[in-house]
Amino acid sequence: MGFYNFPSGAAPGFASGERLVFPWAATMGKKLKHKRREIVARLRIQAAFDSGLPELIQRIAEKAHPADVAAYLYELDPDARDQRLQNVPAAVLVRLAEFLPMEDTLRSLGHLEAEARTSVLDQLPDDYLVDLLQALPQDERDAWVQALPPAKRTLSNSLLQYPESTAGGRMTTAFAKLKADMTIRDAIEHLNSLKERTEILSRIFVVDEAGRILGKVRLRDLTFNSRRNLISEVMDSDTLSIEAHADQEEAAQMITKYDLLALPVVNEDLRLLGVITYDDAMDILEEEITEDMELISGIGGERGDQSYLNTPVLRHFRRRFLWVLVLAFTGLFSGSVLLHSEDVIKDFYILSLYLPMVVAAGGNTGSQAATMVIRAMSTDEMSPGSFLRVVWKELRIGLLMGSLLGLCVALQIRFLLPASANPEAISVLTVAKVVGVALTMQVSSSTMTGAILPLAAKAARLDPAVVASPAITTLVDVTGMLIYFNLARLLMAV
Amino acid sequence: MGFYNFPSGAAPGFASGERLVFPWAATMGKKLKHKRREIVARLRIQAAFDSGLPELIQRIAEKAHPADVAAYLYELDPDARDQRLQNVPAAVLVRLAEFLPMEDTLRSLGHLEAEARTSVLDQLPDDYLVDLLQALPQDERDAWVQALPPAKRTLSNSLLQYPESTAGGRMTTAFAKLKADMTIRDAIEHLNSLKERTEILSRIFVVDEAGRILGKVRLRDLTFNSRRNLISEVMDSDTLSIEAHADQEEAAQMITKYDLLALPVVNEDLRLLGVITYDDAMDILEEEITEDMELISGIGGERGDQSYLNTPVLRHFRRRFLWVLVLAFTGLFSGSVLLHSEDVIKDFYILSLYLPMVVAAGGNTGSQAATMVIRAMSTDEMSPGSFLRVVWKELRIGLLMGSLLGLCVALQIRFLLPASANPEAISVLTVAKVVGVALTMQVSSSTMTGAILPLAAKAARLDPAVVASPAITTLVDVTGMLIYFNLARLLMAV
Repeated sequence: MGFYNFPSGAAPGFASGERLVFPWAATMGKKLKHKRREIVARLRIQAAFDSGLPELIQRIAEKAHPADVAAYLYELDPDARDQRLQNVPAAVLVRLAEFLPMEDTLRSLGHLEAEARTSVLDQLPDDYLVDLLQALPQDERDAWVQALPPAKRTLSNSLLQYPESTAGGRMTTAFAKLKADMTIRDAIEHLNSLKERTEILSRIFVVDEAGRILGKVRLRDLTFNSRRNLISEVMDSDTLSIEAHADQEEAAQMITKYDLLALPVVNEDLRLLGVITYDDAMDILEEEITEDMELISGIGGERGDQSYLNTPVLRHFRRRFLWVLVLAFTGLFSGSVLLHSEDVIKDFYILSLYLPMVVAAGGNTGSQAATMVIRAMSTDEMSPGSFLRVVWKELRIGLLMGSLLGLCVALQIRFLLPASANPEAISVLTVAKVVGVALTMQVSSSTMTGAILPLAAKAARLDPAVVASPAITTLVDVTGMLIYFNLARLLMAV
Repeated sequence: MGFYNFPSGAAPGFASGERLVFPWAATMGKKLKHKRREIVARLRIQAAFDSGLPELIQRIAEKAHPADVAAYLYELDPDARDQRLQNVPAAVLVRLAEFLPMEDTLRSLGHLEAEARTSVLDQLPDDYLVDLLQALPQDERDAWVQALPPAKRTLSNSLLQYPESTAGGRMTTAFAKLKADMTIRDAIEHLNSLKERTEILSRIFVVDEAGRILGKVRLRDLTFNSRRNLISEVMDSDTLSIEAHADQEEAAQMITKYDLLALPVVNEDLRLLGVITYDDAMDILEEEITEDMELISGIGGERGDQSYLNTPVLRHFRRRFLWVLVLAFTGLFSGSVLLHSEDVIKDFYILSLYLPMVVAAGGNTGSQAATMVIRAMSTDEMSPGSFLRVVWKELRIGLLMGSLLGLCVALQIRFLLPASANPEAISVLTVAKVVGVALTMQVSSSTMTGAILPLAAKAARLDPAVVASPAITTLVDVTGMLIYFNLARLLMAV
């Protein structure tokens, strides 16, 4: 108990955690009072790590929240952090591990003696342990697993069979199970013996002799009912569950949709294997969303577990460069259209004033449509039949935006174009017509492209975000030039 | 109890929920077994709504999970859905409300008699009730609040003082409070009387005489300790909490960072006002992320609570058009650079082949950098001192990408450019030099722009996502043209 605040006199160098007063606190107003504990905790953590004494680090780190210890470490510059991470005592690493980027946890574990490392691994929650092991090269993983105590080794091997991104790969087995014919008294006794080893007691699952899930009870059902009642009398025979090979994103979406605390994971015969908890669901959603946003901006490759600032330049480079290179060479198609429109440009140079506008309007509206559709696919339930409804909606939006934008710009040309910009004295009305119609066509076709490409990608079982912004922009750059110059040829009778 | 599955014979037209077998199930393999309940539930919901009988709808809807009822309604076409929403019985609406878009809940409430409506409002969780009221026009809101029973009216008025997007605006007051000098026996009796009216019992807070927060206990601390113990002996005197006027995003981030189930919300004197639960945190994070993604693609305005498909075309149009219009006219700056580069273009028309590439490479790399920085700011803790580290990192990434891309394209020009594309027979080496150097400059300056603009927006207390993709692309379009043509003038000695 007593996670975040420090009992009086717990750490040297501070008179009393409860009464510590900062002389400048009064000037910073009431809000600070509220932040005081946080600041005190931070100072103690810093003092402990600065001292370099393992006993002191351990004493302080056990009382601080591990998220605060991690936050302290990641505000240091990289060298200082690495040096401190090498000296994290094993007992501290057990609590800190889940709050560090996985690569750093692995590195810290690497600095420990084999025996200390095995002991840390043995104490980690099983779902996190499996994530860690999955990040290791095969031979190292085998060696680490071999060193584990037999029970943990069997468990790890059985969990390692589920790929990282499945429900089975994310589940924990540290949850409480009861039998339906137990009395509440027996159940409470049984849970009492387990309570230190289970991640979550808010949801307790009931299984039959074969381990198949029968329902669930909440701790409050046990606490507020007579201890003579049977579990079967108070349980909720709800069987909402997910198959272990299902995608982790599906599990996270079920947890959000039904506001669950824990979702049971079962095998094909409905045998209960583990649970995924609400905090795992939050992590999964954050990961998937970051992945989507990065893909939308043309950033590829494995994200890694490091924060932005702690990822080396070369790794950032590797994740970004391929797309940039591919898109650059794709840009030659636009260039080629431009090169072959020399006739139009040289005769009607005034058209170059509106060329970037026509082209960019397509990129902008295409990206908007793609983002809306991608987001809708990941948060709403879109049935396959929604395809036509999406296309019909975007068609109307695109036509509306395109024609209105075309009209606005045509009016601007008709009434506001300075004669100095038009030395060849080309009919202003014709220019307005070409630009206005081109904008209408470019915006409505780009909006449709932006909506259809992600839907098509999904139908082809690709991540819809792959074909988002940069791909669409590059594509509609070409269509924009083609529309603009061919329209000019047509209306200006080149 | 019994939320998602139907006890045998609960609904007419089905022999027995437990034993119902679909003849085609065998052919669809084992996975289906797992989905059977879901399908049965859906069919029952559909049959009930199709019958139009309020008693039947009520009986079925009370046994189904409200998320499933909502999912059924939102797969109907809009007219059929509206017709069904008008006929939702009051008792069903109480459970269904939170799973519908807020506008639809308000509309369904509007169809009820005043008395039935007040009764529904009275039974809604207080945090959701306040969200609903905040969505109403002032006069309607006042009328609805006036009709509430006195206790609920006072509560609503006190909660309505916190803006929607603050911690206070998202908190619920339906949580359990205990005094430190109670025995566990008294505490359990007290909680038993409250258990139907509290949202969460996994975290119970302990307060002093003045209502200031002293700590928390978990239900397991009460269940597994002797009932003669005092609450003060088992409580965790943790005071992690948030001030009611703090931003909701800050609350959600604390919940994720510390893996909390419930975060206490306090006033300036640390008096406990309410709690924010983990599921609210998930909702807040989803909202903020969708908002970010939309802003990044130049979609503005109030999102509304409707799903993509259920938002009318005109509303989509309103949210997207302003940005498109502004960006289109900003595109005139690029056009104007192009117009004033007539000298370069007409003499060295081969340069037009590489113009779109140089310009677009800036947009692509600028958007990448902006997305990385925006995402890092919203998921990591970036201190003000991180500014220089971000700039330094992006400078190196930009230079690396720019020079490598410039080199690749220069080599392509030197060795692969067909002579037919270059009728003026301009020195290939000079073209390679202009394009290569322009790409290096454009990519590195755009990367810096993409990184700095969101940081600057944040420093100016704007949402960093506002200045993302479309704004950056439009800006670097201009710089790209300026770099390209001026470099050509310089190196080709026009």
